[in-house]
Amino acid sequence: MTRGPQVGELRIDGDRLLRRLRELGEVGSTGDGGCARLALTDADRSGRDLVTTWMRDLGMQVAVDEIGNVVATLPGQEAGAAVMCGSHVDTVATGGIYDGNLGVLAGLEVVETLSAAGVVPRRPLAVAFFTDEEGSRFAPDMLGSLVYAGGLPVEEAYDIVGIDGARLGDELARIGYLGSLPCPGQAPHAYVELHIEQGPVLERHGETIGVVTGVQGISWQEVAIAGQSNHAGTTPLAYRHDAGLAAARVAVYARQLAAGMGGDQVATVGKLDLFPDLVNVVAGRATLTVDLRNTDEARLAEAERLLGAELDRIALDEGVRCSRRHLARFEPVEFDPRVVQVVESTAGSLGYSVRRMPSGAGHDAQMLARVCPAGMIFVPSVGGVSHNPAELTTPEHIEAGANVLLHVLARLADQGWS
Amino acid sequence: MTRGPQVGELRIDGDRLLRRLRELGEVGSTGDGGCARLALTDADRSGRDLVTTWMRDLGMQVAVDEIGNVVATLPGQEAGAAVMCGSHVDTVATGGIYDGNLGVLAGLEVVETLSAAGVVPRRPLAVAFFTDEEGSRFAPDMLGSLVYAGGLPVEEAYDIVGIDGARLGDELARIGYLGSLPCPGQAPHAYVELHIEQGPVLERHGETIGVVTGVQGISWQEVAIAGQSNHAGTTPLAYRHDAGLAAARVAVYARQLAAGMGGDQVATVGKLDLFPDLVNVVAGRATLTVDLRNTDEARLAEAERLLGAELDRIALDEGVRCSRRHLARFEPVEFDPRVVQVVESTAGSLGYSVRRMPSGAGHDAQMLARVCPAGMIFVPSVGGVSHNPAELTTPEHIEAGANVLLHVLARLADQGWS
Repeated sequence: MTRGPQVGELRIDGDRLLRRLRELGEVGSTGDGGCARLALTDADRSGRDLVTTWMRDLGMQVAVDEIGNVVATLPGQEAGAAVMCGSHVDTVATGGIYDGNLGVLAGLEVVETLSAAGVVPRRPLAVAFFTDEEGSRFAPDMLGSLVYAGGLPVEEAYDIVGIDGARLGDELARIGYLGSLPCPGQAPHAYVELHIEQGPVLERHGETIGVVTGVQGISWQEVAIAGQSNHAGTTPLAYRHDAGLAAARVAVYARQLAAGMGGDQVATVGKLDLFPDLVNVVAGRATLTVDLRNTDEARLAEAERLLGAELDRIALDEGVRCSRRHLARFEPVEFDPRVVQVVESTAGSLGYSVRRMPSGAGHDAQMLARVCPAGMIFVPSVGGVSHNPAELTTPEHIEAGANVLLHVLARLADQGWS
Repeated sequence: MTRGPQVGELRIDGDRLLRRLRELGEVGSTGDGGCARLALTDADRSGRDLVTTWMRDLGMQVAVDEIGNVVATLPGQEAGAAVMCGSHVDTVATGGIYDGNLGVLAGLEVVETLSAAGVVPRRPLAVAFFTDEEGSRFAPDMLGSLVYAGGLPVEEAYDIVGIDGARLGDELARIGYLGSLPCPGQAPHAYVELHIEQGPVLERHGETIGVVTGVQGISWQEVAIAGQSNHAGTTPLAYRHDAGLAAARVAVYARQLAAGMGGDQVATVGKLDLFPDLVNVVAGRATLTVDLRNTDEARLAEAERLLGAELDRIALDEGVRCSRRHLARFEPVEFDPRVVQVVESTAGSLGYSVRRMPSGAGHDAQMLARVCPAGMIFVPSVGGVSHNPAELTTPEHIEAGANVLLHVLARLADQGWS
């Protein structure tokens, strides 16, 4: 670090960051405080255009890769791998203005703060936004960072068809974000992502900064149950093969399973559909999903095994057939302990209360963790609400998170790992 | 009974009855063995026209009442209240060719058999079909017989709006079945309805004739559950207000309740909908229906009370709000023991195996039971299937049921109750 004031005294400009968040939130605004910028739509292009304009205005070198990830770099005193921060600027259909955007715009705020103070870090700093993190239009989610980290060949990604029938590669070209930088991308020196928690834990505990230790492993299974559709009045209980009852038993069991396992284990049946779904007809078919998450792979696999055994029991009890398939399966990710340590000590030295916690949601950082030391900073979500126009993080918490990001990046850019 | 052979020797013509069933089944045919003649549609009109043509061909006097019920009468040796049989000719959207139609066409078959043998019963015989028994287009079901029995003013019935936005009174006039015979209608001397069982009991027990002792009381409740929509990954179990879990608990409890009460009690959760119904979102809202049935009113009311208490418990446990409302509530109906006895002894004397049983489904006979001695004859449904193109009752069982109807009507038309 050369020239300028003591870096340790620097603070980001919270108002400036909020102005950018709100201006970006106007793009694709849903008129209710939220916004909708599904990946690679016209609204996403407009959001990308605005952010890349800001990047260039800050004197950063903007590069677009083959999957549309945008990486803006501020040269350091030395060449080499950059210390990268970032997140995503696509949203779900009922998105708020903070999710994803905060991590990107806080990165720009860090760059502007350092530049205004005349600080040039030793290593280059990069601010990235990754394509289609939400997965709301093109599955899987975290697609851009997955391709960046080499987890999915770019040609395969191009052929993914969205919920509206559009081909990902075509849409990328159409909106002008089919770049030339090759994928997989260059491994950063480190990657740090600031993100809203999207859960209630920090708020409930009155803490400001979440030091994210890793990302829970995710198992999404779809369970299809085939029973027999029968008249609800004329069919004695003993003759029933009630797919609806079997589905309800799975949902009740999933909660018991998670509560019994304790720790970080969660289980959710969020989707459950009966057929024909009529008041006086015993359901002949049911489909439901079971979302299991745990920070520990062995325990997650154990939860899957127990669920499978219970499905067999329910099938036998109710005289129905249960089949299941994975819709998604990600092993838990543990962030690099050195990054976790830097985040924790930096937040503490800035005077913020901190809490070590896993992330229950998936984030681009877990993909970057495949290629470099990575970590995350969480700030509280009011009411734990996200993916919702009512999503809110208070200005003071946004400022706190961005200040932690500033000093984490500054430390990682200047120091070794020792 | 005068002239002709010994009435006791008479048998209906099963082939002729089957031909009429199949010809009527062609009207509104869905091409898969089933038919769709929703009440007061063009298809229903065509079905009605065909049946009334047959009625007139048999020399019966056809009258249409203010709600479109059609009553065809064969004069007896004496004037006075007729012995009536019948059912309905409307169907559900995925109807079979037996449900309802059998009771009406078997009545015509009885008339043709008696007439061909030169038998004139002492009392008039009437064959009726009642409007909108299924309730698939206009709620409630059993509407025509309800109005006939004085349970619903005809002017109120006219104002009922169907699932397609049509007004019942307008549709009745449009298809030419807004008759002049006043409602409530004249009380018959007795009413007997032949119907397919629509359940598996007779088939499972290898029995031919169900002697229906009454109709189960029905309680349909809709339960609305309001919880809180949350992220399935970031929301610890302890912070959840999972409307989907609460709904599943209600469904599991409903079965436990019915199994625990024993006897005729059944309980079904056939409709259950989550919102937003997504794999990774804890459901914020759920609605479900609970269909409770019992032949005993006190026990049905007890089942409702126990369900309500459990809803309170679940609301407390899960931190959700549960509200419920009745969609339908009918007390159990007990058929006249004299009619039940005549059906049982007649079937036995014809050499058929019999089983006393309640009806789990609603039928026009339960409305007629409000105004006259009434009863029903069940014949087996293959696989217990109904409201389905695959609905089937074997020719031998159709013939058996119609022969029982023949001799029950003959006895009721000629004898007193002693």
